[in-house]
Parts: sequence; C-alpha cells; structure tokens
Amino acid sequence: MALIVQKYGGTSVGSTERIRNVAKRVARFHREGHQLVVVVSAMSGETNRLLGLARELSSSPDPRELDVVAAAGEQVTIGLLAIALHDLGVKSRSYTGAQVRILTDSAFTKARILEIDDQRMRKDLAEGTIVIVAGFQGVDRHGNITTLGRGGSDTSGVALAAALKADECQIYTDVDGVYTADPRIVPEARRLDKITFEEMLELASQGSKVLQIRSVEFAGKYMVRLRVLSSFEDVDSQSPGTLITYEEDDDMEQAIISGIAFNRDEAKISVMGVEDKPGIAYAILGPIAAANVDVDMIVQNIGASGHTDFSFTVNRSEYRKAMAVLESQRGKSFEARDIIGDDHIAKVSVVGIGMRSHVGLASKMFKTLADERINLQMISTSEIKIAVVIDEKYVELAVRVLHKAFELDKGSHGPSA
Amino acid sequence: MALIVQKYGGTSVGSTERIRNVAKRVARFHREGHQLVVVVSAMSGETNRLLGLARELSSSPDPRELDVVAAAGEQVTIGLLAIALHDLGVKSRSYTGAQVRILTDSAFTKARILEIDDQRMRKDLAEGTIVIVAGFQGVDRHGNITTLGRGGSDTSGVALAAALKADECQIYTDVDGVYTADPRIVPEARRLDKITFEEMLELASQGSKVLQIRSVEFAGKYMVRLRVLSSFEDVDSQSPGTLITYEEDDDMEQAIISGIAFNRDEAKISVMGVEDKPGIAYAILGPIAAANVDVDMIVQNIGASGHTDFSFTVNRSEYRKAMAVLESQRGKSFEARDIIGDDHIAKVSVVGIGMRSHVGLASKMFKTLADERINLQMISTSEIKIAVVIDEKYVELAVRVLHKAFELDKGSHGPSA
Repeated sequence: MALIVQKYGGTSVGSTERIRNVAKRVARFHREGHQLVVVVSAMSGETNRLLGLARELSSSPDPRELDVVAAAGEQVTIGLLAIALHDLGVKSRSYTGAQVRILTDSAFTKARILEIDDQRMRKDLAEGTIVIVAGFQGVDRHGNITTLGRGGSDTSGVALAAALKADECQIYTDVDGVYTADPRIVPEARRLDKITFEEMLELASQGSKVLQIRSVEFAGKYMVRLRVLSSFEDVDSQSPGTLITYEEDDDMEQAIISGIAFNRDEAKISVMGVEDKPGIAYAILGPIAAANVDVDMIVQNIGASGHTDFSFTVNRSEYRKAMAVLESQRGKSFEARDIIGDDHIAKVSVVGIGMRSHVGLASKMFKTLADERINLQMISTSEIKIAVVIDEKYVELAVRVLHKAFELDKGSHGPSA
Repeated sequence: MALIVQKYGGTSVGSTERIRNVAKRVARFHREGHQLVVVVSAMSGETNRLLGLARELSSSPDPRELDVVAAAGEQVTIGLLAIALHDLGVKSRSYTGAQVRILTDSAFTKARILEIDDQRMRKDLAEGTIVIVAGFQGVDRHGNITTLGRGGSDTSGVALAAALKADECQIYTDVDGVYTADPRIVPEARRLDKITFEEMLELASQGSKVLQIRSVEFAGKYMVRLRVLSSFEDVDSQSPGTLITYEEDDDMEQAIISGIAFNRDEAKISVMGVEDKPGIAYAILGPIAAANVDVDMIVQNIGASGHTDFSFTVNRSEYRKAMAVLESQRGKSFEARDIIGDDHIAKVSVVGIGMRSHVGLASKMFKTLADERINLQMISTSEIKIAVVIDEKYVELAVRVLHKAFELDKGSHGPSA
C-alpha cells in the first residue's frame, strides 16, 4: 500500500465523460489498496472563459478579485469528480485550497505555497476516503483566495506530495511520458523510464512541454518522486510513464544522453563590432531587460583588435520589440558596426546527466550536424546540455540525425524498461 | 448616511454589461455617502449549467459535493462585480459565504443560516469599502460549503441585513415593485409604495412572484425593512420601489385592500358524498401527503344527512398523480359517491391588512363577481385575504373588475407616493 498523489490537468477533466474516466482510474488504484490524494485543474477552457469575463469588465482587473473568479473553475471540478466517485460507490471528499488548507503568500495571481496542513487529509486517508483537492489555488494568512499562476496545478500536486511525504506524485497529461525526442519528428523516439530532475529541467526549458518547470524544481527541492503518465490510456493497461527522480541510482551511471530537445520560438540578434570593454554586455542587455524582454542564450566571442560581436536570443514574439530597443539605443548606450536579427532560427539541444563525466560529446554533435551541412550560428553549453542555434529549416533533420548518432533509439543511453 | 444591503438576482448580473450596470448603481449609492453590502446570485443560467454537469455524472449526486459545485457560480459573480467596481475607482472586497462567514447547519442543498459574523464586514464598511457577498451559500461548523436552496440569495440578503442591523435591505429584480395587480392584466394597476409583511406573504403565495417567501418570513421575523426595486431602470432616475415593512404606521390605517392576486397553476379535486365523521379529512389527505403532493386550499361544507363534500386544490402538475392516489384509496381509506377533478380553474384573492377591521369586503367581492356572472366554486378566507376558485377562463375579467371595484387604480387603498 502506497500513498499516491495524482494530478489531472484541464484536458483530462475536460468533459463529464473524461471526469468519469478519471474516477474509474482513481477507483482502480483505491481498489488496489493505495491511499489517494487527487489534484485537479479546471475543465479545459474554463479558466480562459472566466478570465475573459474579468477582462471584459476591466483592462487591468484587480488581482485579488481575479483570483476569486479563477479559483471557481477548480472548485467545480473537485465537486464533479467527487460526485463521479460517489456514483462508483467510492468514498471521497473534495477540498478547495482554502479548506485543505494550502497556505500561500498574498501575491495574487502568482502566489507561492508556504505551508500545507495535512491533518484533515490524513484523517480522511486513514478512513479509506479519497481526498480530492483543487489545484492552482490556496489561501493567504488573511483568508483571501489566491492562485498560483498558470500551470500551478502541477505545483499543487507536488507540494501536496511533499507535505504528505507521498510515495509518488503522478502527473497525468496527454502524453505518456518523457521521450528521447518529439515522436512527431523522430518516430523511433523512445519513452524514458527514468530521468533526473536536472535533465527534466533542461528538456522542459528547451521545449519538451510536459511539466511546468516550477513544479519540477519544487519536486527536486523536496525530493518528491514524480511520474508523468497519460490520462488517455486504458485504465487497465496503463504504461508506467516516466519517473523523474532525484536519485542518480546505479543503473543511471551508464546514462550519457537522455534526449534531444528543440525550440522554434526564438529569434537571434547579433550586435556586430562593439567595443570589447567592461560593461558592454550591460549596455546592450540593460535596455532589453528594461523593456521586459526575456533573453535566453547569450554568446560573446573573444574580441579581436578591441572589438567583438555580441549575440543573444529572445522569444520570437518579442523580436521586433527587442530590435527597436537596440536601434534606439545604438549611439547612446553603445556603439556598433551593425545590428543583425534573424527570426528564422531554431535551437537544438542535447541533454544528459552523463555529460558530466563523458568527453567528446560536443564534437560528436558538431560533426553529426556538419555531415549534414548544417551551419552552427551559436553554441552554448552547460554541465548537462549542449545547445546550438541553426537555421530553422534544418530543425527536424538535426533532431533526427542527432537522435540516431547518439543511438537513443537503441536505449543505449541509460536506464531501460 | 445609511447602511444598505442590496441584493441582485441572476438576471440582474446575467452578463458583464449588466454587472457593469450594477456596479454603476452601487457606486452611486456609495458616492451619496451610504455604507453598502451587496449580495449577488450566480449569472443567470449558470447554476442550472453546473447542476446539469453534476447530473450527467450521477442521477443522485452527493449533496455535499453538489453544494461545492453550485457555490462556484456565485463566487464568479462576486469577483466580477468587485472587478467592475475597482474599474470605476471604487474600493470593494468580495467574500464567499465561508469567508464572511455565514454559518449554516449541515443540511446540504437546503441549509439554514445559524449565525453571521459581522466583524470583517464592519471593518471594511468603516474604511469606506463596499462589501460584496456571495448569496445562496454558507459554511457549516466543519468548514464544508453549503447552499441555501433555490432563491436562497434573497434569504442571504435579508440575513445579512438582520445581522448588520442595516437600515434597509433592497432586493433588485426585474420588476420595480409590488403592484395592486399584475399590470399585464390590469393596465391601471398601481405600484404600492408600502406593504406589510403579512400582505406580501399572501400576495407572494398567491402568485405575485417577486420575492422568495422564505426571505419575506425571515425579514418579518428579524424586522428588516425590505424594499423591492428594479435593476433595469436608469441608475439616476430610479423609482423608490415598494417598501415591505413590519410597522403598521399611521398612514397605513386607511389601507383596506392592497392588491388582487391570482394563480392559474392549481387544480381542484372534490370528493363527493363522503361520510361526515371525525378522521375523514385525514383519510383523504393522508395518502395525498404520503405521495408528496402539496395541498393548498381545503374546503369542507357542513354535511347534510351524515354526508359531506370535501374539496381541495393541488398544483396543476400534480393533479393526475393526486387523482390516481384518490382512486386507488377509494373503498379502502374512505368511501365516496364520486371523485371529481378540474384542472381548468384559477384562484383569485383580495389581500389587505385593512380587512381585519373592515366588514362587508367579502360581500362586495362576491357581488362584483356575480355581476359578471362568474360562478364561485370554492371560497376560503384568512384574516387578511379572501380567495375564491373560479373557471380559469374568467381570471383576467375577475382581476380587472375587482381591481376597479376596490378602487385600487385610484390609490384610495392606502399609502401613496
């Protein structure tokens, strides 16, 4: 018997039929003797509908009240799931964030969880009652309803698992786990049975949109065993999904590369021939940050003859804004020979915890891409990742050849089923 | 400066545009220096939508969880109204039933209010903040969300007014007050400026569907000044509506008749030639009550030669059921010569607190109807009401001639503007 926290997102509870399927899955785990805490999001589309109503009334809705409105979405789902479980003859009880209680700070629309009271839940669990908790929401010290921001339901699930010291936190989504690459691009991509938190963070931030980054960080911090599974598989023949773990256990030692990620949502900007002197990075990026534009990769080459080229990437939707900021600052904050932008680039990354102790991976990556005549425009490395910027038209090709070159299809990358 | 509780029903907050209009009205009262507590229902249609989802999942949804689902409807409206007020630059704060807190018993879906904590509201009001409270809902001693049942928002408004000892509880609806008769039938019908709780109860139960009967009883019990107004009138040229008061003040003394009510939703059943003996009423109505059929009027004539005729009315939708019950019991619970039913009847009532001290009103009513050759099938009287059952085809005629006969169009019935 284990204590399991399960989290179901908006798509998984998007209709009464799907809620009934979730109830069946929960009931099966309950029959198997597990104690269950189930965290649910609002039905898909509902949060957007509610926020839309608020925005019809105000261009900048009061954040406290916005949270009151938004939190109603999850409240409906917890009640409906409890009704579906009762209808299957399974004892359950629903709780809003305030009822549990999930104590947060008072940063409305993006609150942080401070503390979770596990008394009420433990009492229910001891009685064999399934506990259903509204994700995405909490309550502050003054009794105000708060929400955790987009994707906050993942964080709710992980935080509840941490508070209850659950054996596992299962995140049900529309994919059945984390893959070595996007299966739509690489048909041979394999589902990973295990992955470390650090790898997951790199893969997630590189575009493998499976889990909210914040919930993964949270799980890593509190050492919660996290598992990603599909909510659309048959209840009785469920795949084991992917376990995201903080332990680098034995069979992980041989892991080198865990996956290939890519991101087409960026644009590249190069400021050419700037003076190579202290403070030049701030002179260029300061105005960009002031304009609220997030910068991802930053690369600066060693300068020759006192000048250097400075390149960085931004989200593609902020590309025009960033270019305009630079043009307006040129000649004021900094001098430059030229400013060149390109919004037809893609970033491709090779991610793996094994990189720490293996050499030659970067050159293998570069040779593989060179063999396909793919030019590398920028290169950036971290302890467990090598990322390159290439022309976006080569992205599928690059992902496929890297997947093959690192033999990810063969499972030689590490832990296998 | 007064402390006013305003209650807006589902139609009054049925769209963001209407919510904005409510905000404008509330803001005007605030500008005039009043302290305001505003109670709102769910947006029209929303409660039915939520209960519909629940019923898709279970034919008999768990009542505790049904309340969790339903209460989300009002939670959305309070947040939206607060957002609209903030957008007008007016300070306001929304509260769910649990936040206020409105303590109820644990009778889910039909809870009764036990106690209201006015601390938080008083603090806000003292600071000039408008308090917005979710109607229809509360919380029990264990922290469970409860709802008060259909029309419960009126009761929430009255209960808050009682707890806060408000100067007035204003119920905004789609009519601008209580009329001497239905204006669709009697164009000369006049809006009453004042009416007593007892008259209101008689008028409400007779079909003038303006307020929930339960809230009127509550207002009478706690001596809350209740005013019915229209939420669809122009904010700046609002009619004063109808004040429902517990005081029979001076200018009410000359009031005789306050209005003519009618009800077309009933059917009449007569059990003819039953034995005139103790227990016969129970023998007939016992099985009817056991079948969960509500009985309204009951009339039994003085029996001749040991036999009598026994008549009563039921809701028209339960007429067939009631007839079937009687036919099945005839010869068992009671003997009867005949059972005759008629579902084409209407009830017309003359209501007025002045009846207590004025004689001859019944004969005036009967003569007026006789002059039009309208036959009276049943007659029932209370201290402040005379009700008759007639063929439903005469209902409009009867209401019009009675309205004229009692000179209600002339305002001679009592208090006037």
